[in-house]
Amino acid sequence: MERTSAADVTGGSVMVSGWVGQLRDIGNLKFFLLRDRTGQIQVTAKKGVVKASVLEAVAGLNREDCVTVTGKAVPSAQAPGGREIIPDDLEVVASSTVPLPIETSGKIQSAVDKRFDYRFIDLRNPMVMAVFRVKAAALAGIRDFFSQNGFVETHTPIIQAAGAEGGSNLFPLIYYQKEAFLRQSPQLYKQMLMASGMDRVYEIGPAFRAEKFHTRRHVSEFVSVDGEIGWITGVEDVYQMLEKMVVHSIKAVQKNCAEELKLFERKPTIPDIPFPRLTYQQVLDTLNKEKGTTLQFGDDISDPDERTFGELMGKKGHDWYFITGYPADVKPFYIMMDGTISRGFDLEFRGLEMASGGQREHRIDVLTKVMRSKGLEPDDFRFYLDAFRYGCPPHGGFGFGVERMVQQLLGLENVQEAILFPRTPEKLVP
Amino acid sequence: MERTSAADVTGGSVMVSGWVGQLRDIGNLKFFLLRDRTGQIQVTAKKGVVKASVLEAVAGLNREDCVTVTGKAVPSAQAPGGREIIPDDLEVVASSTVPLPIETSGKIQSAVDKRFDYRFIDLRNPMVMAVFRVKAAALAGIRDFFSQNGFVETHTPIIQAAGAEGGSNLFPLIYYQKEAFLRQSPQLYKQMLMASGMDRVYEIGPAFRAEKFHTRRHVSEFVSVDGEIGWITGVEDVYQMLEKMVVHSIKAVQKNCAEELKLFERKPTIPDIPFPRLTYQQVLDTLNKEKGTTLQFGDDISDPDERTFGELMGKKGHDWYFITGYPADVKPFYIMMDGTISRGFDLEFRGLEMASGGQREHRIDVLTKVMRSKGLEPDDFRFYLDAFRYGCPPHGGFGFGVERMVQQLLGLENVQEAILFPRTPEKLVP
Repeated sequence: MERTSAADVTGGSVMVSGWVGQLRDIGNLKFFLLRDRTGQIQVTAKKGVVKASVLEAVAGLNREDCVTVTGKAVPSAQAPGGREIIPDDLEVVASSTVPLPIETSGKIQSAVDKRFDYRFIDLRNPMVMAVFRVKAAALAGIRDFFSQNGFVETHTPIIQAAGAEGGSNLFPLIYYQKEAFLRQSPQLYKQMLMASGMDRVYEIGPAFRAEKFHTRRHVSEFVSVDGEIGWITGVEDVYQMLEKMVVHSIKAVQKNCAEELKLFERKPTIPDIPFPRLTYQQVLDTLNKEKGTTLQFGDDISDPDERTFGELMGKKGHDWYFITGYPADVKPFYIMMDGTISRGFDLEFRGLEMASGGQREHRIDVLTKVMRSKGLEPDDFRFYLDAFRYGCPPHGGFGFGVERMVQQLLGLENVQEAILFPRTPEKLVP
Repeated sequence: MERTSAADVTGGSVMVSGWVGQLRDIGNLKFFLLRDRTGQIQVTAKKGVVKASVLEAVAGLNREDCVTVTGKAVPSAQAPGGREIIPDDLEVVASSTVPLPIETSGKIQSAVDKRFDYRFIDLRNPMVMAVFRVKAAALAGIRDFFSQNGFVETHTPIIQAAGAEGGSNLFPLIYYQKEAFLRQSPQLYKQMLMASGMDRVYEIGPAFRAEKFHTRRHVSEFVSVDGEIGWITGVEDVYQMLEKMVVHSIKAVQKNCAEELKLFERKPTIPDIPFPRLTYQQVLDTLNKEKGTTLQFGDDISDPDERTFGELMGKKGHDWYFITGYPADVKPFYIMMDGTISRGFDLEFRGLEMASGGQREHRIDVLTKVMRSKGLEPDDFRFYLDAFRYGCPPHGGFGFGVERMVQQLLGLENVQEAILFPRTPEKLVP
C-alpha cells in the first residue's frame, strides 16, 4: 500500500507513517497522535475493535517512536481534525529512547544550548520547523526575482588566497601546504564577473567571519545573498534592485507560508517601494535631536542607537529603509568615494542591518590609490585588479543576510534561531 | 535615455552599452561590433554622416573598450542581424589595455592556464559563457524538481568537526584555536535531518576534497547537489527520485538553453525512465567478457574500464545507468549492508560517475558496529549517532555533481571548464 500523508487522510483504507506524539492509555481504550511533515492524525485502538496484538503494540509505544500504521480512516467527533484511524496493523519502524533530552511541545522551554545539541529533536517543534520553511520560501522568492530580471546564478570560490573585507576576521586554512582563507564574501569575484559581460550575477552561498561577538546578529557562518549589476548609472540603480528583491521575497513568504506565519502570529506587510533613503548624516541628526546623543560625522552608530532609530522609523510606518552616504573612512576599499562621502549604503529592517552595498570603484588608478591609503598592497590583489584593465563597466551590488531577514520577519531573538546548525566561537558541534 | 540591449535594437533612437568587438577602419568609413550579454550590434560611423568628434572617437577605440553609444538604429544589408546604429554620440566608459592577454574569439585557442588566470576575459567567448548559462539552467531545473516534490531547501555547516567520507582528503582549518575541517559532503547533517520530521531535504552547496589527482573529473571545490528522503521502503525509492531529478534538469536545459546548446552542436536527448540498474557484478562480468579484463568481486573499476563500459552502454542506447550492489567493503560506514553487498550505488552518465548514494544504516547498533569495523571511533561521531536514538526512520539519498553533468552534456574535456574559478592543487588564484 502507498503511504498517505497525515493531512491527506480522508477515509477508507490507509497507510500512514510518522512519529508518535501524545499518547493516552485508559485501559481498554488507547490512542495516540501520529505526526508527519504534513500534520497529525489520531490512531485509536479499542479492545474488541482492533486485534489484541495491535492493542498490545500500542500499549508498548514510547513517545517519538517511528511507526507505520495501516487501518481504516473514519470520522470522529473527538479526534483533532475530525478523523481517526482504526488500526489493522502497527509496526514500530524505529524506536525512541525515553526520556527525550529536550522538550518539543513548545509548552516547556528547553535551554537554548541543549536545543542546538539536539537540533533534530528541536525541529519536531512546529514553530522551529516553521522557521526553516519560511527561510526556504524567502530564498525561493529571491531566486525567482533574480531569474526574472536576467541575473545569472554563479558559484565563486569559498577557498580564497586573500580576504576582501579586511584581515582580522578571516579563518585560515591549509590548502596543499599553502595558506588560504575561507571567504568573507564573494565580493572580489562577483566584481571580476562584471568585466566578463555577464552584467547581472547573483550567488547564494556560505560566507564566514571569525568574529568573537556574542550578539543577536553575529554568527561565524551564514548564508549570503550577493547581487551585482553592471552598467549602472549610479548607486540608485542598486537601491532599486535590492528593494524589489526584498519585496519579491516577502511576497513569496506571505504566499507560501500562511500556516507558518500564523504560528508566529505574524502578518508581514509588503513594504512600499521606494524604501526611504536617509543619509548617514540625517540619521545622526535625528538621533541627536530625538534621543540626545552627540554623534558626529565619522562616528559609528551603535547597536542600541541603530535599534532606536529603527523604532523611530517604525512609528512613521517604515520597517525598511536605506542608510546612504556613509563616511568614506568606514567603508571598504572597493566602494566608490566622493571625497569624504562614500557611495556605500546599508539596508535596514526594523533597526537591524540586512544588507550592505554600494557602487564600486571601477577606475583602476583610483582603486589602487584607495587600497594603498587603507594599508593594502595592490600586488596581493593582482588577480582582482587585472579585471579593471581590459574594460570593466561601472557596477554596484550588495550582500544580503537572509537569516537576519527571517529573524526580523518572525521576531526571533537571535539569528542563530534561523540557522539549522549555527557556528559561533563556542559551537562547532553538531 | 534608457539602455537598450543589443538583441532588442529594432529601430529609432537608442542607447546601447557594451564591449567593442571587431573593429574596421577604412578611412572615411569606420565600424565596430558592440557586444553585450544579449548579443551584438554594428555601429557605423561614416564621414559626413556622423559628427567629426564621433568619427574621431571611433578611430581611437581599442578592442574590448566599454562604450555607450546613442544614435539611430537603421536597417542595413551588410550588418550582422540586418541592423546598424548610426551614432550621434559615443562615450568610452572604461578603456581596455592592448593587447589582450588571451583570445576570446574562439578561433585561436589560448593556453588553458592563461584562460583561467584571465577568466573574466575568457568568459567573453560565447562558448565559455554558454557553459555557465547551461549550469545555471541545470540547477534551476533541479531546484524546481525538489520544490515540486516536497523537499525543503536546507543549509548545513561547511565548517565541521569530523569528516564523513574518510580522513585522508580533508582540508584542515583553524576554528578559534580548535581544529576543524571543510566538509566533504553534508552527509551526516542531512541524515540527522531525517530524524527531524523534515522527511525530504536538499542542499546545493560547496563541498571540498583535498585530492591530488589530476584527472578530467577531480577538483578540490565543487558544487554538490544533495538529496535525502525518509520513510523509504528500499534503495529503489532513491533511484526513482534521482532519475526523475536528472530528467527534470535536462528538460530545463533543453527548454532554456537552445542557443547555448547550438553553439556546442549538442541536442541532449531526454533519457528514458527507468534508467537501467546494473549490478556491480554484472558490470565486471560484461567487462571481462567483452574486453577481456579479469576483474573479480571487490576490485575497483578503473577510470578507463568505467569509460569503456559507458561506451558499451551507449551502443545499447543508454547514456545514463545505475551501478548497484557495490561490495560493502568499498562503501562508507553509513551505507546499509546486506552481508558482503551494500545498498550503495553510483549513477553514471556516459562512463562518468555523476552521483553516489544509497540506503543508509539507521539501526544504531548495526551502525556503531560497522563504524568500529571501519576503524572509526563512534564517540567522535556522538552528535551524529544521537540522531538514531530518538526515532529515525529508514532513509536514503545521494550526492550529485552538477558540474560533471554539464561537462558530459556539453562534451567538455575537463570538469574545470564548468567551474568559474576552479580550485586544484595548483590553482588557488584567482
